[in-house]
Amino acid sequence: MRKIEHIGIAVKDLEKSNQLFEKLFGNPPYKEEEVASEGVKTSFFLNGPNKIELLEATHSESPIAKFIEKKGEGIHHIAFDVEDIVSETERLKNEGFVVLNEIPKKGADNKLVVFLHPKSTNGVLIELCQEIQ
Amino acid sequence: MRKIEHIGIAVKDLEKSNQLFEKLFGNPPYKEEEVASEGVKTSFFLNGPNKIELLEATHSESPIAKFIEKKGEGIHHIAFDVEDIVSETERLKNEGFVVLNEIPKKGADNKLVVFLHPKSTNGVLIELCQEIQ
Repeated sequence: MRKIEHIGIAVKDLEKSNQLFEKLFGNPPYKEEEVASEGVKTSFFLNGPNKIELLEATHSESPIAKFIEKKGEGIHHIAFDVEDIVSETERLKNEGFVVLNEIPKKGADNKLVVFLHPKSTNGVLIELCQEIQ
Repeated sequence: MRKIEHIGIAVKDLEKSNQLFEKLFGNPPYKEEEVASEGVKTSFFLNGPNKIELLEATHSESPIAKFIEKKGEGIHHIAFDVEDIVSETERLKNEGFVVLNEIPKKGADNKLVVFLHPKSTNGVLIELCQEIQ
């Protein structure tokens, strides 16, 4: 847990939200990327040592479509940068956190990712992410 | 907008959540503070260049009590560190963002703070904060 790597925000219309967040940060997204396995199109903004990831669902079964249906647009998850995702996942499991995927999977922005269940983390969906070398 | 200063998380029981987040980060909160004007007790965890603020309501009319009643425990706001809160608030107002308090107010952790209305920011409650010198 070295820093907040990014905050993920669920949006309905990536293009419109890109314009909004460009006004907020004064800079356009540095990349856009589709993650087919998660059913999302994403864009990333840099903000100093941190990033903001916008996520739009690509189909109605996408976790992001379901999130927006239930809660509306807004903050979806916090991702923390970790040095060794395997040992950090093991440590957190031993501390009693519920791990959603024990085997790290490929996420957006060249990362291996593991999610912790919000029921074990005060309602916050937490992602661990490690840069793929 | 120089970095994510902190993420604010609404919790029901600060003491229990302090224990949970201490397990997550491997360190206890570096401070606890009550902000009577906002009706909250807070605790702060360091995570590299960022912080996590936990917020418990001190009475039923507190914004945090209302948030939890409506949405449950979870991420309440993102705070961005700004160099000059007055000029940054003016810039964002001119860009069309809805400012909740045009005059910066004293927040927790020795900061001046301004909030942007979530209806103008994709459902995300955004706080600007500047360290008081």
